[in-house]
Amino acid sequence: MLKTSDAAIADVAEYMANLGSRARTAASEIARASTAQKNAALQAIAREIDARLDPVMEANAADLQAGEKRGLDAPLLDRLELTPARIDAMIDGLLQVANLDDPVGLISELKYRPSGIQVGRMRVPLGVIGIIYESRPNVTCEAASLCLKAGNATILRGGSEAINSNRAIADCIVHGLREAGLSPDVVQVVGTTDREAVGKLISMPEYVDVIVPRGGKGLIERISRDARVPVIKHLDGNCHVYIDQHADLNKALSITINAKTQRYGTCNTLESLLVAKSIADRVLPELAGQFSEHGVELRGCAATLKILPDAIPATEQDWEEEYLAPILSIKIVQDLDEAIGHINKYSSQHTDAIITENYDSAQRFIREVDSSSVMVNASTRFADGFEYGLGAEIGISTDKLHARGPVGLEGLTSQKYIVLGDGNLRQ
Amino acid sequence: MLKTSDAAIADVAEYMANLGSRARTAASEIARASTAQKNAALQAIAREIDARLDPVMEANAADLQAGEKRGLDAPLLDRLELTPARIDAMIDGLLQVANLDDPVGLISELKYRPSGIQVGRMRVPLGVIGIIYESRPNVTCEAASLCLKAGNATILRGGSEAINSNRAIADCIVHGLREAGLSPDVVQVVGTTDREAVGKLISMPEYVDVIVPRGGKGLIERISRDARVPVIKHLDGNCHVYIDQHADLNKALSITINAKTQRYGTCNTLESLLVAKSIADRVLPELAGQFSEHGVELRGCAATLKILPDAIPATEQDWEEEYLAPILSIKIVQDLDEAIGHINKYSSQHTDAIITENYDSAQRFIREVDSSSVMVNASTRFADGFEYGLGAEIGISTDKLHARGPVGLEGLTSQKYIVLGDGNLRQ
Repeated sequence: MLKTSDAAIADVAEYMANLGSRARTAASEIARASTAQKNAALQAIAREIDARLDPVMEANAADLQAGEKRGLDAPLLDRLELTPARIDAMIDGLLQVANLDDPVGLISELKYRPSGIQVGRMRVPLGVIGIIYESRPNVTCEAASLCLKAGNATILRGGSEAINSNRAIADCIVHGLREAGLSPDVVQVVGTTDREAVGKLISMPEYVDVIVPRGGKGLIERISRDARVPVIKHLDGNCHVYIDQHADLNKALSITINAKTQRYGTCNTLESLLVAKSIADRVLPELAGQFSEHGVELRGCAATLKILPDAIPATEQDWEEEYLAPILSIKIVQDLDEAIGHINKYSSQHTDAIITENYDSAQRFIREVDSSSVMVNASTRFADGFEYGLGAEIGISTDKLHARGPVGLEGLTSQKYIVLGDGNLRQ
Repeated sequence: MLKTSDAAIADVAEYMANLGSRARTAASEIARASTAQKNAALQAIAREIDARLDPVMEANAADLQAGEKRGLDAPLLDRLELTPARIDAMIDGLLQVANLDDPVGLISELKYRPSGIQVGRMRVPLGVIGIIYESRPNVTCEAASLCLKAGNATILRGGSEAINSNRAIADCIVHGLREAGLSPDVVQVVGTTDREAVGKLISMPEYVDVIVPRGGKGLIERISRDARVPVIKHLDGNCHVYIDQHADLNKALSITINAKTQRYGTCNTLESLLVAKSIADRVLPELAGQFSEHGVELRGCAATLKILPDAIPATEQDWEEEYLAPILSIKIVQDLDEAIGHINKYSSQHTDAIITENYDSAQRFIREVDSSSVMVNASTRFADGFEYGLGAEIGISTDKLHARGPVGLEGLTSQKYIVLGDGNLRQ
């Protein structure tokens, strides 16, 4: 069982090794669990959260109170808060994950080889996944449910400011797992706020197969630098829209406005707009008018300032910035080549879009822009596991290896080879 | 151009950063190169090697002479040697890679979403791949050709004992790239034997996307521990065959003998045999007779020794050992559960096989054994990129993330998302 008091944990390294060892054992159990059993566990956890609404809300109230005392700022307190609506969303999320197809065991490309063997690939769980996250306690439930459905054991390390909420949710998860006849060690929440626990969690390759950090850039950079196991990470989203000289102006306007203003704080929000020189004076004034209505501050290159004298001069730093705010940088480029070059230099390789009616521009953009999502005539805001049909996502990877872009259940598994023979020998 | 003299390289860190920066630029060129252009380069390199046979052989003779002087042992000198047959094999390999399908640009699963966007995945190069290898100079050519076909730039760091051979092969590659109109920086060979070069190569995430080490376990462990970029690695191959109580005895005998004796020094060779208790006395005496003819030393558990009194008692260490030699450990197990438990504990997760005619045993073994290749009634020796139909392989990964098992062209690429719209906005 989980130790729920810091006082009880004298030796953090030993405590984490114990968690890891139990997770490793639980991982083989959940790896061979049937789809029905995993779904039953998800449904049982949903019921437990519903039944334990009061203690979960009380635990959250304690975190909020402590947070206010510690002087946490309003956005942080907002992320920390579990409203009844957010708890309902957690419950819905669990049931949605239960409804997703089980990725484990899927065999693909099974084919006969000249030697007579059949060779194919089977999708299998990764093993033990360590999740490190900040403030939002609903991540406890979201992350655990996805990892569980993909047949993995999980060790969750939330922020110290949410420790009571996370423990209360963990209680629900443990009861749900038990109800479904699964080991409670399939999902473990680190029961100490000691920072050493994170250092240990990311350096136990014998117990942990992959780390998924969710949080600010600082946290993720630190974890990537120090981890001794692979990390599936999302650093930042400096997303571009390039309005090609062959763009349909209506699409250019509506997509650019949507990509920037539909939500400001998300990683797939437009941060930097590129406009082909030959079309700039036809598109920028109208765009600037609409952005002004939305209260979006525009920061432009020298050429942009000639068309939009009210814009603020952009600095080199602006091309690299993920504002997460009503600010947009604008650069006029000579042509498609310069646009692709600029994006491949400054983009965070998250999501970049071209607006064009030209076949060749579209083809080249798709092929040559080296980002996890590359779009033609669509808003960058679509870069999202739900919009892509993954059912749910644990994050959006800006890495190249393993999972790139929105990571759903498939990204929490890998493929092994299976060979079916009939006594075949190697010649 | 390559600096070919150690004396010319005063600052190794600067030299490596320069190599990395040039590789990064070359990577975007080779990423957008057409299939025809990449194939032309491979064919040109093959022609160059054929035309420069003499200087390559002379460079190799110099390495061999230096190696003998330094007292390298016979197997090492053998791996170092480039015979005319081995050079022909290099040339054939290049032409074979040219004939493989280009993985880059393949779009899969492109489908419409309710929002109206089409979402799919496109296979793209990884970027810059660093290959670190020992003694065998033909790896220079094999690794470079696979990386090139998959659209990646390569930095190759061979062993100091093969430096002259590697430089001579690099000359051929550079000329071939130029002939095909590609930058010579697409394939660069590190021109210094300074050990610091390796340390630098594995810690330049800004220039290198992934490291593929090929060599002994010591080298690979060292690189995995110190690398600051992802590593696609193959540690060792402690492969098992489990003879189930429902095995066909003829298949059990022939597969076990083949898996052990067809070649002793390969990573997919059988190293540890598990036999179900109820069938042991029917299968082991005959097997021991055949192994004795092959001169294979048997090391058994206590129960095995009762049936095969001439076998050597196995120690705990034997269950973990990759012998790469005519030695086999044998353990009698109670049942399938014990076999799977033993394999998941001691196997290096490379390749493990069951011999059985029972549907349920086969199904459970395939699902529950957590190795990169899991086989039914086939020799472990089939675990190989060529036998699996990958066309070629750069190695066999015992990792779980990204590529697992034999790594061919596909493992040297990743997938990005592409979104095709018609002015679609996020609601």
